[in-house]
Amino acid sequence: MKRILTSETTKYIGGKVRVCGWVNSRRDHGGIVFLDLRDRSGIVQVVCPSNLAKGIKDEDVLAIEGEVRKRPAKMINPKLETGKVEIGADKIEILAKAASLPFDLREQELKMSLPTVLDYRPITLRHPKIKAIFRVQEQIIESFRKSMKNLNFVEFQAPTIVPVATEGGAEVFPVDYFDYKAYLAQSPQLYKQILVGVFERVFTVTKAYRAEPSVTTRHLTEYISLDCEMGFIDSWEDLMKACQALIYNIFSDLMKNCKKELETFGQSIPGPSVDIPRLKLREAQKIIFERTGRDNRKEPDLQPEDEKEICNWAKEKRNSELVFITHFPTKKRPFYTYPNPEDSEYTLSFDLLYRGEEIVTGGQRIHQYEKLVKNIKRFGGEVKNFKFYLQAFKYGMPPEGGFALGAERITKLVLGLNNIREASIFPRDMGRIDQRLSTLKPKNPPSLKLPPSLKLPPSLKLRRARKK
Amino acid sequence: MKRILTSETTKYIGGKVRVCGWVNSRRDHGGIVFLDLRDRSGIVQVVCPSNLAKGIKDEDVLAIEGEVRKRPAKMINPKLETGKVEIGADKIEILAKAASLPFDLREQELKMSLPTVLDYRPITLRHPKIKAIFRVQEQIIESFRKSMKNLNFVEFQAPTIVPVATEGGAEVFPVDYFDYKAYLAQSPQLYKQILVGVFERVFTVTKAYRAEPSVTTRHLTEYISLDCEMGFIDSWEDLMKACQALIYNIFSDLMKNCKKELETFGQSIPGPSVDIPRLKLREAQKIIFERTGRDNRKEPDLQPEDEKEICNWAKEKRNSELVFITHFPTKKRPFYTYPNPEDSEYTLSFDLLYRGEEIVTGGQRIHQYEKLVKNIKRFGGEVKNFKFYLQAFKYGMPPEGGFALGAERITKLVLGLNNIREASIFPRDMGRIDQRLSTLKPKNPPSLKLPPSLKLPPSLKLRRARKK
Repeated sequence: MKRILTSETTKYIGGKVRVCGWVNSRRDHGGIVFLDLRDRSGIVQVVCPSNLAKGIKDEDVLAIEGEVRKRPAKMINPKLETGKVEIGADKIEILAKAASLPFDLREQELKMSLPTVLDYRPITLRHPKIKAIFRVQEQIIESFRKSMKNLNFVEFQAPTIVPVATEGGAEVFPVDYFDYKAYLAQSPQLYKQILVGVFERVFTVTKAYRAEPSVTTRHLTEYISLDCEMGFIDSWEDLMKACQALIYNIFSDLMKNCKKELETFGQSIPGPSVDIPRLKLREAQKIIFERTGRDNRKEPDLQPEDEKEICNWAKEKRNSELVFITHFPTKKRPFYTYPNPEDSEYTLSFDLLYRGEEIVTGGQRIHQYEKLVKNIKRFGGEVKNFKFYLQAFKYGMPPEGGFALGAERITKLVLGLNNIREASIFPRDMGRIDQRLSTLKPKNPPSLKLPPSLKLPPSLKLRRARKK
Repeated sequence: MKRILTSETTKYIGGKVRVCGWVNSRRDHGGIVFLDLRDRSGIVQVVCPSNLAKGIKDEDVLAIEGEVRKRPAKMINPKLETGKVEIGADKIEILAKAASLPFDLREQELKMSLPTVLDYRPITLRHPKIKAIFRVQEQIIESFRKSMKNLNFVEFQAPTIVPVATEGGAEVFPVDYFDYKAYLAQSPQLYKQILVGVFERVFTVTKAYRAEPSVTTRHLTEYISLDCEMGFIDSWEDLMKACQALIYNIFSDLMKNCKKELETFGQSIPGPSVDIPRLKLREAQKIIFERTGRDNRKEPDLQPEDEKEICNWAKEKRNSELVFITHFPTKKRPFYTYPNPEDSEYTLSFDLLYRGEEIVTGGQRIHQYEKLVKNIKRFGGEVKNFKFYLQAFKYGMPPEGGFALGAERITKLVLGLNNIREASIFPRDMGRIDQRLSTLKPKNPPSLKLPPSLKLPPSLKLRRARKK
C-alpha cells in the first residue's frame, strides 16, 4: 500500500490509508492508545487498541495502516491541521525503535541550555520550533537566489581554499595543502570581482570562515555568505537600491511562505513601505552623541551599542527597522574600497543595520588597475600576491561594487533569536565542532602560529575586523 | 541616458541608445572604425569615424551613445543575434582602459595549453566557449535544486569543517582550528543522514574536499557535491528511480535552456526515452571479460577502462548513454552502506555511469542503531568518534538512502571536455590554487603528516578511495 502524508489524511475520510512517521507522543486511556504520528508534513492522531501499540514509545518509527475517520465534534483539535480526523489503526509496523529520549521533545520550549541543545543537535533539530528556524533560513537563501536571478545575475560556486598570498592576518584558518599552506576563504570577494569581468553580475551562496578567537553571540567560525557583485553601476547608489530591493523581497517572501514559522516566534516583518533611511557614519555618531552622551564621533566604526541606538533612532524618527550607515573611513575598509571622490578620508561604502545589528556590508570597489595597485601598496601588501586577481582589472573592468549578507545573521534577527548559534544548523565556534572541543585533546599544544613572513599587515585584511 | 543591453538594440531601430561593454574586436576600414561591443547579453556592432575611436583597443570598457540603424541587406551578419543592426556612435566614453592582451581572445578555440588557460583564468573566462561551460554548470545545479524541491526535499547548508573524530585516512585536508586539528569535509554524508531524522528528505549543494595526492583528468581537491538523502524508502530501488528522474530532468532543462551552449560544444543530450539499464558489478565484469578478455571479475570496483567499456556496451545493446552498476562488495563501500539481505558480501549500493565515467554514487544506508554500531567496530572505527552522528539513529531513523553527483563531472561529460579542470571555474589541484604552487616556496618541508594516532583504517573512510 502506498504511503500518504499525514497532511493528506483529511482527503481520505472513510478510506484506508498507510502513513509513516515518528511517534510524537503516546497517551493511554483505558484499553485505548492515542498516538500522535509525525511526518514531514505534520501530525495526525492514531487510535488503536493497546495490544496493537504494545511497547511503542516516543520517536519510534512506524508504518501504520488504518481507516481515516471523522472525529466527533467535541474531539476536534483546532491546533492540528488534521484535527478533524483520526486514523483507526488496524496494522502497525515498527520500522525502527528509538531509545528513551533524555529530554521531552514535546515541550513548547526545550528546557535546557543552548550548549546542551547543541550537544544533542541531531535530536533537538526535531523540535518544531528549532526545525522552523531552518525552514526560514532555506526561504531567505531561496529569496536571495530568486531576486538575483530576476536581476540577471549569474550564480557561481566560489572556491573556499585560497592561496597563501591573497589573504592574511590572524583571523584565517590555515590548511595543510600537501607541501604548502593554504587558507580557508574569509569571503568570496576577489572571485566575485574577477567574475564581474566575465558575467557583469554574479552572486554566490558560499561558506566563509573566520578564525574568530573570541566567543560572542554574533560570530561563527563557518558561516553562510550571500554575496553579489555588479558591474556598470552608474553610481554606488545603485548598490544600495539593489540591496534594499533584495531585503524587501526576502521579507515579502517570508511573509508569504513562512507565516506559520514567524508566528511560532511571535515575529512580524516590516512591510516594504519606506525607503531605508541613510546616514553617514559621522552623522550617525553625532545622533548617538546627542541621544546618549556617548562620544564615539571619532571612532572608525559603530560599536554594538551604537548600532542598537541608531536602530532605535531609525524606528522612532523614520519608522524603519532598517538603516544604512555610509561613508566609513578609508583606513577602516579593505584596500579595494572606492574612496569618496569628494573626500578621500572616507569611502563609498555602506552597512545595512536591522534590529540593532549589521546584516549587510558593501560598497563600490576600485576598478582602475593603477589605482588598485597603488592602494595595495599603500595598505602594505605585496602586489605579486594579488597578481591573479589583478588580471581582471588590468584587462578592463567596469565601475562595479557589491555587497554580502550573512544568512545566519538575518535568520537570527528576523526570528528574534538571542544567539547566532541557534541560526546555524551545525554551528562551529571556538569551542565546538559538533561536539565540544574541550572533550578532545589539543592536537598542537601550543597552537600553530603563522610564521612572521606570512603575516600581512592587518590593514590589508579583506574585510575589516569584526566588532566584538 | 539609461543603458540598454546590446541584445535589446534590435527593438530600437531609428532610436538613440546607450550601450556599455567591452571591445570584443576593432576593425579599421579607411576613416571608419568598426567596434564589436560585448556585454552580458551578447555583441553589437558599432560604427564610428576613426577620430572618435582614437586609441581604443580590445577589452577597453566603453559606454557608447548613438543611433540604432538597420544594416544594408548584404551587411547582415546571421551569426550575430543583433546582426541586422548596428550603432552609429556619436559619443564614446572610456570607462576603463585595458592593457594589450597576451593572447587573442577572438580565436574560436584558445591556442594555448590548459595550464596557461588556468594561469590566465580571470581573462580566459571571458572567452565565449569557456564562459558557456559555467552557464551550463549553473543550469545543472539549478535543475538539481528544482528537481529536489519538486519532490519535497528541504535544502540545507552542510558544514565543511568537520571534527577530528568523524573522518580519517590520508585523503583529508587538516585545518589548524585554534588549538585543535579539524578537517575539511570529504562529503556532507553524516549531516544529510542526521537530517533525514528531521526533514525526511534533504539536499545540499556544497563543497567537498579530497587531498588527492595524484594528478588525473578526473579529480579536483575542492569540488561541488550535489547531495541528497531520503527517508521512508520502500526499497533502495526508490533511490535509483529518484536518481534517474533527476538526471533526465537535468538533461531536459539543458536541452531547453542551454541549446546554444551545447551547440558550441557540438553536443547533444540523450532524451529520456529509456529506463537506465542496471547491471550488478559482477555481471558488468563478466560482460567486460567476454567483450575484451580483461578479467577483472574479482575486483571490488570497475577500473576507468572498464567504465568506458560497459558504457560502450550500454550504448550498443541498450541504446543508453547511462548505466547503473549495482551491488558493490561490502568491503569496498563505506561502513554505513546497507548490506544486501540476500548476500551480505555485497551492498545495496549503486554507481551511475555516463559516457564512460561515474557521475553518481549512492545506496541504501544502515538505519538501525545497533547494526550501525556493530559495523563501525567491524570497519575498525571507534564508536565514540561517531557519537554525535549516532544520536540520529539511536532515537529513531526510518529506512533511508541517498546519492551524490559531482557537478564538475557532469558538466565535463555533458560538454565532452577532456579535463575536469575545464569544468571548475577556479580549479584547485595538487599543483594549483589559482597560481601554480610551484611558484611558491613550500611552507612545511617536509609535508605535515598525520600523527599515527589520527590515522583511521582506510576501510572506515567515508567514501571509497577514488579510482586513479
